[in-house]
Amino acid sequence: MEPSNYGTYLVTQESLSPGRSTLEVVEAAIDGGVDVVQLREKGADTRWRYELGLEVREVTAEAGVDLIVNDRVDVAEAIDADGVHVGQSDLPVSVARELLGPEAVVGCSASTVAEAEAAEADGADYLGVGSVYGTTSKEVPEPEDDVGPERVAAIADAVSIPIVGIGGVTAENAGPVVEAGAAGVAVISEITAADDPAAATDALASTVERTKRQAAERD
Amino acid sequence: MEPSNYGTYLVTQESLSPGRSTLEVVEAAIDGGVDVVQLREKGADTRWRYELGLEVREVTAEAGVDLIVNDRVDVAEAIDADGVHVGQSDLPVSVARELLGPEAVVGCSASTVAEAEAAEADGADYLGVGSVYGTTSKEVPEPEDDVGPERVAAIADAVSIPIVGIGGVTAENAGPVVEAGAAGVAVISEITAADDPAAATDALASTVERTKRQAAERD
Repeated sequence: MEPSNYGTYLVTQESLSPGRSTLEVVEAAIDGGVDVVQLREKGADTRWRYELGLEVREVTAEAGVDLIVNDRVDVAEAIDADGVHVGQSDLPVSVARELLGPEAVVGCSASTVAEAEAAEADGADYLGVGSVYGTTSKEVPEPEDDVGPERVAAIADAVSIPIVGIGGVTAENAGPVVEAGAAGVAVISEITAADDPAAATDALASTVERTKRQAAERD
Repeated sequence: MEPSNYGTYLVTQESLSPGRSTLEVVEAAIDGGVDVVQLREKGADTRWRYELGLEVREVTAEAGVDLIVNDRVDVAEAIDADGVHVGQSDLPVSVARELLGPEAVVGCSASTVAEAEAAEADGADYLGVGSVYGTTSKEVPEPEDDVGPERVAAIADAVSIPIVGIGGVTAENAGPVVEAGAAGVAVISEITAADDPAAATDALASTVERTKRQAAERD
């Protein structure tokens, strides 16, 4: 799948999932129409991530949903993921690309225009831009770092690769992120901590698709 | 270098080094005659480990000293290390081998005969066995888990790949580990936290070599 089709993007974190396994959350998100899953699971040991990754790879492959691994290029290779997502403190995009080859998807986190332009120049296929609205997924929220839909728009103007907005995004506030030029939105808690993760995914996907349709009709 | 020649094995951890960089410690250990360096740096971010790894690779390659990366197969590939060392919670030995190829060194931690036999069957080139004497390098020492030279001997009897003893090893107590059948000893603090890391490496190497010579003369 092309990252320009990453409309609804689930980032996994079992520690933020009340009483459900990541595999259950992923299966529900697939039922709800998710486009791509990122195996994150910060703080978990490598063996567990690898074994979980094999299971998640099976259900995502069957559903035609992309699977991206956070940070670990080796885990991505080992579970035959579609690609990797690196942050500013992870391996450089160019190194991930060299290890994974030209066909793999390499995404990169960026919160400024400068980071976004550098990641694009380094060979990134898409950008995760945030935190758009702050986040409930980190222990210490840093609201002063929120980039807002305005920064998403500035980055979308500056680069030609697709952007996914992340950080505090819900079905209610996803519209302005897409209007700002994002191809989609990435969430942890909105799906993972929802009473009904499939319904939450469907609601998010509906907002993204409706906003894109409205924007297309306007143009 | 064959892992059977890993007599003196430095495991790096800058956070345990008082006022010295890992690069300085590695350079001193090379002066003192170290055989192999493992880039560990638990808790550090990937980018930092990668950049440090490139520097350590340069000085170790120049000195003909092997470089092994803890846990991260991707970092090992990215910095052109000689191999990787995996623990029981890291990627399986067989997966590391598949990613790195037949020429790479793949080491594995083992504290029981069962773990040692499984790692050998899985394709490990050497074993890190410990904690031999407890350790000062973990926040919460677990002395009840010390394996002692006796367990080193039991594992050396059970497998045919080389063993490196780790955990609380010093120049004073390394002899019994080598007498038990270890090819060498691995240390963090003994070198990293020493007043003179080069002298500490030399003292450790002297104990290992003297013990091996005495054992050979006895046989």
